[in-house]
Amino acid sequence: MSQWKQIQQLEMRLLEQVDYLYDDNFPMDIRQVLAGWIESQDWDSAVNDESMASVMFTNLQTQLEKVRLQEQNFLQRHNMKIIQQQLQERLTEAETRISHLKDTSELLQAADGREVSGSMLCGNCFQDLELQ
Amino acid sequence: MSQWKQIQQLEMRLLEQVDYLYDDNFPMDIRQVLAGWIESQDWDSAVNDESMASVMFTNLQTQLEKVRLQEQNFLQRHNMKIIQQQLQERLTEAETRISHLKDTSELLQAADGREVSGSMLCGNCFQDLELQ
Repeated sequence: MSQWKQIQQLEMRLLEQVDYLYDDNFPMDIRQVLAGWIESQDWDSAVNDESMASVMFTNLQTQLEKVRLQEQNFLQRHNMKIIQQQLQERLTEAETRISHLKDTSELLQAADGREVSGSMLCGNCFQDLELQ
Repeated sequence: MSQWKQIQQLEMRLLEQVDYLYDDNFPMDIRQVLAGWIESQDWDSAVNDESMASVMFTNLQTQLEKVRLQEQNFLQRHNMKIIQQQLQERLTEAETRISHLKDTSELLQAADGREVSGSMLCGNCFQDLELQ
């Protein structure tokens, strides 16, 4: 029996704690439909390994797509599509944020020892930045 | 048989059109769990009657709460809670936007015939507005 099935047999008081762990950032539907796959993955290693995390995210999407294509129920298939879209949007947002952080870091390195214009202080106007 | 059940018996080509009508602004779960109730309401009248729309929204929330309390499945109960929270958040956002629009309208009326400071042009600084 998957851990997820065991969890659902807990008493209400404990179930409420599980309930609070899931919001729309990681829908509980994913935990349920991919219970076996999720529990067989090495998430501890992925936490500190960006390339491994990236591969696992791609695998997660592949698994979700497989479930969606096999789903006969119209509502469940629709919800799976929405969940996949939202996951992809969040990944894109996260990648954009990471990219901005990297830009900032590279700019600071490039500016090392040189005078930097005041626009360096503006988080959203990297394009206007002029190293002097 | 509810219209919603009839819809789900349509051919795939037409079902895809239905699929595109629903996003997370109005989850398809609501359409399904409240199919009978939704189809018995006078939505056409509510479109042009703000107080009627408000009452119907409250009734919708009451119906959803009833469904959630009766739901035995842990995942479905959890999803219903998330849906109710998101609906409430969107209502609050919409009310805030309407309130801002009303503020703007009242400010323009108050300023009628008088000189208004430049901050009138700033959409987010009504508190700083000084009629001169």
